[in-house]
Amino acid sequence: MPRIPTGLQSRVMSAEKAGQLITSGMTLGMSGFTLVGYPKALPEALVASGHAKDLTVCTGASVGDDMDGVMAKAGIIKRRYSYQSNKSMRTLINEGSIGYIDMHLSHVPTFVNRRMGGIHIDAAIIECAAVTEEGLIPAASMGASDAFVRMADKVIIELNETIPLDIIGMHDVFDIGVPPNARPIPITHPLDRVGVNFIPCPPEKIAAIVVTQLPDKSPAFAEPTEVSRVIGRHIIKFLQSEVAAGRMPENLLPLQSGVGSVANAVLQAFADSGFRDLTMYTETFQDSALELLDQGIILGATTCAVSFSANLQKHFYDNLAAYREKLILRSQELSNSPELIRRLGLVSMNTPIEVDIYGNVNSTHIAGSTVMNGIGGSGDFTRNASLNIFATESVGKAGAISCVVPMVSHVDHTEHDTQIIVTEQGVADLRWKTPRERAELLIEKCAHPDYRPMLRDYVTQAAKTAKGQHTPHDLSQALSWHQRFLATGSMK
Amino acid sequence: MPRIPTGLQSRVMSAEKAGQLITSGMTLGMSGFTLVGYPKALPEALVASGHAKDLTVCTGASVGDDMDGVMAKAGIIKRRYSYQSNKSMRTLINEGSIGYIDMHLSHVPTFVNRRMGGIHIDAAIIECAAVTEEGLIPAASMGASDAFVRMADKVIIELNETIPLDIIGMHDVFDIGVPPNARPIPITHPLDRVGVNFIPCPPEKIAAIVVTQLPDKSPAFAEPTEVSRVIGRHIIKFLQSEVAAGRMPENLLPLQSGVGSVANAVLQAFADSGFRDLTMYTETFQDSALELLDQGIILGATTCAVSFSANLQKHFYDNLAAYREKLILRSQELSNSPELIRRLGLVSMNTPIEVDIYGNVNSTHIAGSTVMNGIGGSGDFTRNASLNIFATESVGKAGAISCVVPMVSHVDHTEHDTQIIVTEQGVADLRWKTPRERAELLIEKCAHPDYRPMLRDYVTQAAKTAKGQHTPHDLSQALSWHQRFLATGSMK
Repeated sequence: MPRIPTGLQSRVMSAEKAGQLITSGMTLGMSGFTLVGYPKALPEALVASGHAKDLTVCTGASVGDDMDGVMAKAGIIKRRYSYQSNKSMRTLINEGSIGYIDMHLSHVPTFVNRRMGGIHIDAAIIECAAVTEEGLIPAASMGASDAFVRMADKVIIELNETIPLDIIGMHDVFDIGVPPNARPIPITHPLDRVGVNFIPCPPEKIAAIVVTQLPDKSPAFAEPTEVSRVIGRHIIKFLQSEVAAGRMPENLLPLQSGVGSVANAVLQAFADSGFRDLTMYTETFQDSALELLDQGIILGATTCAVSFSANLQKHFYDNLAAYREKLILRSQELSNSPELIRRLGLVSMNTPIEVDIYGNVNSTHIAGSTVMNGIGGSGDFTRNASLNIFATESVGKAGAISCVVPMVSHVDHTEHDTQIIVTEQGVADLRWKTPRERAELLIEKCAHPDYRPMLRDYVTQAAKTAKGQHTPHDLSQALSWHQRFLATGSMK
Repeated sequence: MPRIPTGLQSRVMSAEKAGQLITSGMTLGMSGFTLVGYPKALPEALVASGHAKDLTVCTGASVGDDMDGVMAKAGIIKRRYSYQSNKSMRTLINEGSIGYIDMHLSHVPTFVNRRMGGIHIDAAIIECAAVTEEGLIPAASMGASDAFVRMADKVIIELNETIPLDIIGMHDVFDIGVPPNARPIPITHPLDRVGVNFIPCPPEKIAAIVVTQLPDKSPAFAEPTEVSRVIGRHIIKFLQSEVAAGRMPENLLPLQSGVGSVANAVLQAFADSGFRDLTMYTETFQDSALELLDQGIILGATTCAVSFSANLQKHFYDNLAAYREKLILRSQELSNSPELIRRLGLVSMNTPIEVDIYGNVNSTHIAGSTVMNGIGGSGDFTRNASLNIFATESVGKAGAISCVVPMVSHVDHTEHDTQIIVTEQGVADLRWKTPRERAELLIEKCAHPDYRPMLRDYVTQAAKTAKGQHTPHDLSQALSWHQRFLATGSMK
């Protein structure tokens, strides 16, 4: 099939001309999720032209430097919504030059569809593999593109000719509807298809089609360290004990695995775990997941994006027709849906920045003030999973930072939400544990031995000074480790 | 119909004898939610006998003093799960004598059904209006009773003869199932009935039936103060503006209203609001909600409990057959279900202890260490509602405490979750606002004028000292207001 039907050929234009459809102050809903499937030509054209400023850019999640980095550095973004992981963008956010709103990923399409708080998408800019009279065939991610297209005044398509047309049929797009007319999502297995394989869009809404051959900048994953291998083995052993206790099927429940190198390394540990016939229900599908799929250890997955390093990306696209049977690309409204995460009973695995002795988790901020990336989907998954795991090395910056602290400097996941904390030191199972029991477990099982005496001292001091002994804190010292780190570069 | 079928008459026994079925160290799943529908005879019998110690007591939510207070003071409870609001229980928890685990209410039945973390219910003790060969007709609350009965080794029934049998048909019990076999909940309107009107239970599992005539200790609601009336009017005006903007139907979306006097007062404001044909989807149905139902302003509701003061309780029971058409009592697995809260698009209204300048909400702790009640369902509703509102007076303890602080001493709802904060001073709409915009709104719209200069000073100082300007905090001063309160009794 042609990538563009005859009736829409007239909308084909240069990125420069399409960029003229964007004007200052607009809110743009742009495709992209975990560094793939984002527009690449429009950002460059907008930066080159410079006519459109003060833009609000809303995406599903993280996009490449050729979008976020380029636009941020050019100073044309005023506000950035929902998630980012770009160095230049992060710098400008933390300088206070770009306003950033860090959201649960499941909220983004839901709030856009419901016009929550008056959000209005002036234009959707969506990378696609093809377009039809019925709608759009997205590229390597779904993100919140379905909501953006549905609610936008106009749609600009970046039609990427490097994406094989075999991707047609990999997507599954389902319109939940808006209250009071929202409907149940009829998914009961990660591989259930319940919708259509395109994003519905009336042809008259398509304002421009820009043809590109610009590939996704493939993410790079660090080689697993010995420490991350140990963490992976702890998780496998813990899951085996859950199966042995009869609390989890032998092929577990659908896995969710977070973004980045640690998550990638943890997933690698499943390769020689003995687990078989696994499924995934996750927001991103990275290198190690594809390897597990090739090995037959994972039978199939729902994901919001396929995000591979260069070699595996080529392998994936070369074998797209086969993968189409095993992978479903869904909008983050479904991949991160509390309804589905709870129903399917996921095992979620995410990476914290730090955890405190009572099990509160910080996923976003350094020393309370500086945002790193964002909460992403970790809140959607953690709150609703059957079993949630946070895995991290026990120390950072060559031991200068403890990942177990008296009180986290920013809370993204509360004590009510967290269950299993894993470091290379061991596993703390916080389920059905009181705050003081949690403190003991986290210190003795997860904290680095260098920091245990200091943590024990804090617990002793807090018990002496606190009026209430349910969650004893010494407020004069609770954040002192972060203060010391800011002053000296070390928590020690 | 008889309250006890012939085939089960042999199980009728005294509370003393039934109490002998409970032994030390057992985990008990007991009925009760927002002070109604809890066992009253068994607690007294267990305390009188004293043979069973070190009990773990798990309930749906709060129960009366004749259960929690009596058992706590007798020293027979070692651990208490999920929610409490009892003075004696709270005292012992904060002394460190009773271990308390404060959970999202939606998690309780789900985790019990899935045996999460190895939880096992040795005995369920459930207050009922009647029992049949098929199962139990619960009393004034559903709580997590369905899960407790399903998973318990044995079931002890307190059959309360003061509950009119007209209650039969008011309950709606639906078994979601356990992953990988959990199923969609087919509710798309608050008044949809999808299950059976009893808790299924094989007769052989019923170990004892204790007949009682002990009424629920009715909760008392404080008369609305002028301040709470102003808060109520702010909320009405805000909701009217949402309707005017076309973002909400004229009869709004289903309302959820929290527990206690402030929530009760806020709901009263709907009486002369002009709103009509409202529905509720909520965990508790209190006095003002019943008044709105009688006035025809609320058409009907799903609730997990009906919790009225003495006069209204009598009125309710006298007219039970009529109310049965308009009220559905469901398990907290459904009343607090993220799936349903998101699908129905609730407007949630809850009461915080304090909120910080970035919109993090503390619902549970005083000065970080002392727990008050618990998070209850506020997390379930806040995270998944279409619109969430936290309403509180701007100051407490005659002005000695500001409810807007630099940093909350405990986080129950994160900045990612909260939307609308209301005090008698005004409304802060935090939707699509950056952290620094939130700070300005919360200070200028919600904080008490007495505290605004101090809050502005903190913001200025934080901007000067913080390395990152996304969420600027001065960690040396962030918790100083609570420290000052602990030292002097005032935040000033």
